Amino acid sequence: MSSDSEHPARPGTASRTAGRQMRSRLLDVASARFREHGLGGVSIAALAGEAGAYPSQVTYYFRTKEALFVEAACRDMLYVARDAELAAGEQTTPAGYTRALVCSVMQADALGFFIEAMTLTRRRQDLVPLVARTLERLHVEGGRAHAAALQARGWPAPTDTETVARRFWAITVGIAVEGHALGRSSDEMGDEMLRLLGNWPEGPASATAPTLRLVAANQTLSAGPDEESLP
Amino acid sequence: MSSDSEHPARPGTASRTAGRQMRSRLLDVASARFREHGLGGVSIAALAGEAGAYPSQVTYYFRTKEALFVEAACRDMLYVARDAELAAGEQTTPAGYTRALVCSVMQADALGFFIEAMTLTRRRQDLVPLVARTLERLHVEGGRAHAAALQARGWPAPTDTETVARRFWAITVGIAVEGHALGRSSDEMGDEMLRLLGNWPEGPASATAPTLRLVAANQTLSAGPDEESLP
Repeated sequence: MSSDSEHPARPGTASRTAGRQMRSRLLDVASARFREHGLGGVSIAALAGEAGAYPSQVTYYFRTKEALFVEAACRDMLYVARDAELAAGEQTTPAGYTRALVCSVMQADALGFFIEAMTLTRRRQDLVPLVARTLERLHVEGGRAHAAALQARGWPAPTDTETVARRFWAITVGIAVEGHALGRSSDEMGDEMLRLLGNWPEGPASATAPTLRLVAANQTLSAGPDEESLP
Repeated sequence: MSSDSEHPARPGTASRTAGRQMRSRLLDVASARFREHGLGGVSIAALAGEAGAYPSQVTYYFRTKEALFVEAACRDMLYVARDAELAAGEQTTPAGYTRALVCSVMQADALGFFIEAMTLTRRRQDLVPLVARTLERLHVEGGRAHAAALQARGWPAPTDTETVARRFWAITVGIAVEGHALGRSSDEMGDEMLRLLGNWPEGPASATAPTLRLVAANQTLSAGPDEESLP
């Protein structure tokens, strides 16, 4: 029945697992090379070679180099959000929480990578769904988890948690675009972010903190198609 | 004494005026062509031809195509801010003022042009001063004029006007980067901006409005070098 004798119970499981692993490896390699050399400085052949794949596998999984670029950036951005949440989660005061969250986000290379992906998507509207899904997760899951995290800490929660998450990420992107253009350090961008957040999200500064838990720590992060659609 | 008999009182005045006019014409042509075709789709020769100049004049005034791109975008961005202020100035309520300001900014083609210039500057740090000067004007002059505009309307002014201006423009840039990536209309971006501003800048929504008067209406806008440094 099965094409793989080691997994007789579920036909195709092994090949699906191998497919996911190759897909994930290609994303890892793409992320590193694109961040280092940019879209134009990386070829599909080079990526395939480094990942131990055939070039045809890259186009099979991702269709185009641009789609791979955007998907890698979107996946990394979700890791940025998760890492920021983990860093902030160790804090015990609202001010400490906000500072840890902001510093973690602003220090992340992947923030600039994601902004490049959004800029690319402007002229490649076929890639919109990847970016839209990533922003949706940042905004909606972030917003939902925000209220829960506030309550768990005994801090007052804002009324509109999704708006709070949207505002946080819009300011983040705006400051990063400006900061990258000006050659600012991540510390400088973090200071600017803290300045602009002010008594963010709402209410007295001592009572509220931007606790954006975006995804559970043990959750697999993917901006790509659902598992069902994988080969 | 003078090289131009029509302006005997101030040696060199006529040639300086002609230089400024050529410089301004080149910026106008560059703005239109770069917005239409992007940096890569426009040549110095084509720009010069359309402006009635020699290619060497383009490099004389701007050094590189990238510098011309960034300066044109910066100049246009200052016009965006001025036009938004003029549109908002006709409103009589804080809510109307905010809506007019936001809609005007989000409808401006030049906002995306300026974001492209900031993205370019990330890899061309020699162009940082142009972007830095433009953001400084948006933030500092905007902040200063903000307080005056609020007082003139009898509305309470926020305590830190520069921070208010910085926050406004960071959110604007963030929403525009996201919105352009998602293929959003200017109306949708305006709605998102109004959502994120909330009771921005501070205090009760009915009492405060984002009156960012950035430059006086009759002031010449230039992101380029001071007049003294012009040929």
